[in-house]
Amino acid sequence: MKINLKEKLSLFSEHWSPKVIAEMNDYQFKLVKLQGDFVWHSHADTDEVFIVIEGAMKIELSDGTVELSEGEMFVVPKGVAHKPYAEEECKVMLVEPRGVVNTGDSKGKLTASNDVWI
Amino acid sequence: MKINLKEKLSLFSEHWSPKVIAEMNDYQFKLVKLQGDFVWHSHADTDEVFIVIEGAMKIELSDGTVELSEGEMFVVPKGVAHKPYAEEECKVMLVEPRGVVNTGDSKGKLTASNDVWI
Repeated sequence: MKINLKEKLSLFSEHWSPKVIAEMNDYQFKLVKLQGDFVWHSHADTDEVFIVIEGAMKIELSDGTVELSEGEMFVVPKGVAHKPYAEEECKVMLVEPRGVVNTGDSKGKLTASNDVWI
Repeated sequence: MKINLKEKLSLFSEHWSPKVIAEMNDYQFKLVKLQGDFVWHSHADTDEVFIVIEGAMKIELSDGTVELSEGEMFVVPKGVAHKPYAEEECKVMLVEPRGVVNTGDSKGKLTASNDVWI
């Protein structure tokens, strides 16, 4: 079945809680709504892709900040510490291997349930 | 560096010739412009993701046709024969492992150079 991104985004409202919408081999496509500050974290075993579907966000890195708007994407290399941030709600598609936890090596109250499909 | 999809799309005009814009682990994100009929083909070893950035396209499958518009995506399962088609020019992002050839098992005049970055 085809997947409509805006339709899937209309099905949830919580922030920082990625929802799986598709799988390709052992990779997953996830939608997430961001607002405010996330935690610094890294993923030791994998790169992670952010694609902005609507709104704007920032990704802080140790050597600077990447600002992303609708239609822009960024690959966070594996092992690189990053902190996502969005002043206003931003809708994002993530692409990463099945099993990746949102907070990587910094588990805490922002750690979301994994592998939740919508 | 961040990647702006529309900016990258402005850098080429030929049809059916995917350009790599990013890598995540051993996977590639590619942009392609489609118009007219492609060939029936399949990829024996991998699923393939189509995400429509602008315009509309169809993917014919043996058991029906998927119609995709801007903001919609579809995963063609590995080994499944498919024929992309676009009446008017359609701009698409593909996600698939590095090394996948556009025409899969049906090499011919529409087979594009692989691993061309923009």
